[in-house]
Amino acid sequence: MLIFTKKAMDTSLKDLSKKLEEFAKARDWEQYHSPRNLLLAMVGEVGELAEIFQWRGEVTRGLPDWKESDKEHLGEELSDVLLYLIRLADICDIDLGDATNKKIVKNAIKYPPKP
Amino acid sequence: MLIFTKKAMDTSLKDLSKKLEEFAKARDWEQYHSPRNLLLAMVGEVGELAEIFQWRGEVTRGLPDWKESDKEHLGEELSDVLLYLIRLADICDIDLGDATNKKIVKNAIKYPPKP
Amino acid sequence: MLIFTKKAMDTSLKDLSKKLEEFAKARDWEQYHSPRNLLLAMVGEVGELAEIFQWRGEVTRGLPDWKESDKEHLGEELSDVLLYLIRLADICDIDLGDATNKKIVKNAIKYPPKP
Amino acid sequence: MLIFTKKAMDTSLKDLSKKLEEFAKARDWEQYHSPRNLLLAMVGEVGELAEIFQWRGEVTRGLPDWKESDKEHLGEELSDVLLYLIRLADICDIDLGDATNKKIVKNAIKYPPKP
Repeated sequence: MLIFTKKAMDTSLKDLSKKLEEFAKARDWEQYHSPRNLLLAMVGEVGELAEIFQWRGEVTRGLPDWKESDKEHLGEELSDVLLYLIRLADICDIDLGDATNKKIVKNAIKYPPKP
Repeated sequence: MLIFTKKAMDTSLKDLSKKLEEFAKARDWEQYHSPRNLLLAMVGEVGELAEIFQWRGEVTRGLPDWKESDKEHLGEELSDVLLYLIRLADICDIDLGDATNKKIVKNAIKYPPKP
Repeated sequence: MLIFTKKAMDTSLKDLSKKLEEFAKARDWEQYHSPRNLLLAMVGEVGELAEIFQWRGEVTRGLPDWKESDKEHLGEELSDVLLYLIRLADICDIDLGDATNKKIVKNAIKYPPKP
Repeated sequence: MLIFTKKAMDTSLKDLSKKLEEFAKARDWEQYHSPRNLLLAMVGEVGELAEIFQWRGEVTRGLPDWKESDKEHLGEELSDVLLYLIRLADICDIDLGDATNKKIVKNAIKYPPKP
């Protein structure tokens, strides 16, 4: 019997990071993965993400009126940004998970919750 | 006795997603978190990330000659992009971990590894 | 006899602005040209511009080793950014030429020339 | 007697280009103006532009309810994008005015006006 627990379905930053490293190695792409190359590649993907939203005016949360194919396309572009972001962090030797958790703590101090 | 294993230190997308939702709720910020607001906020953070790299010419992997404070700043800007990206996916009702794993599989088919 | 003087070949921001307004009117596109739609469209074009540069490593000024077709493509993407930028300024009722000349003066005061 | 006609107040791309070249020379900044440095600087300014619009929801054309200081700030950020765009084109040896006029013609063929 197959049981999916919430934990089992989680995707960790380190898992993605490892997958991306193997992906690049298997294709001999590491030579192209310099910090600024990856940054510009990420900017390119952010552009594709923006294109999905550009002529729609304000968009309702949950995208209730979007076609399934448009939502799938959106998921792909969000993923592309994430993949280059993780790869960029790795190539810069930044622990993204660690940095992100620290940033959340810093933000919580900067912006205290409403009483 | 506290033992940190590699696994224990992993940061999952779902954990970050949950933290961000609680963060927004505690500050009554959910009203501002519409898809296009979050997208533009992410573009703003991508701009801050670009600023770190803008006058440096080509940058060596691992950033061996960067000051510790610059690396910390970089970690923060990478985090800001990630945080808005995760929040944007959530508000659009996209499972980012699921979408990303699917995208890696799709990429692997599109770009087969070198023989 | 046709004489092109330097002045005659100049392109003014106001000329471009007028052309773009006529272009949108003739296609009934004004309904889509809201400030945030145009901004996101511009971000999309910035992404396409970044894609041209993403895997090239550092690029030499004047692009001496680029193919003519790549330079033409670059010219088109630079143009697309400019066109949306001008249109965005117009829709926001900002005189871009005036603002830009003022910004140059402001920058000149902020960063005095080397003695 | 000094008469400003509409034509006289036009700002041409070549004028801005020339001003920017002189500006960089006078500050010994030409050494930093490589194509990818300028591109990333432009992405940084696009980010600052996005920040102005990020939490506002949909924005009405002409910005009737914006404070004068916010409109001035917007003019400055639009200008910063334009200045780096023009400088990037110059450093890449692209005639931006010429490319833009060609792109408008190409767009007019691709998207014929409504009958």
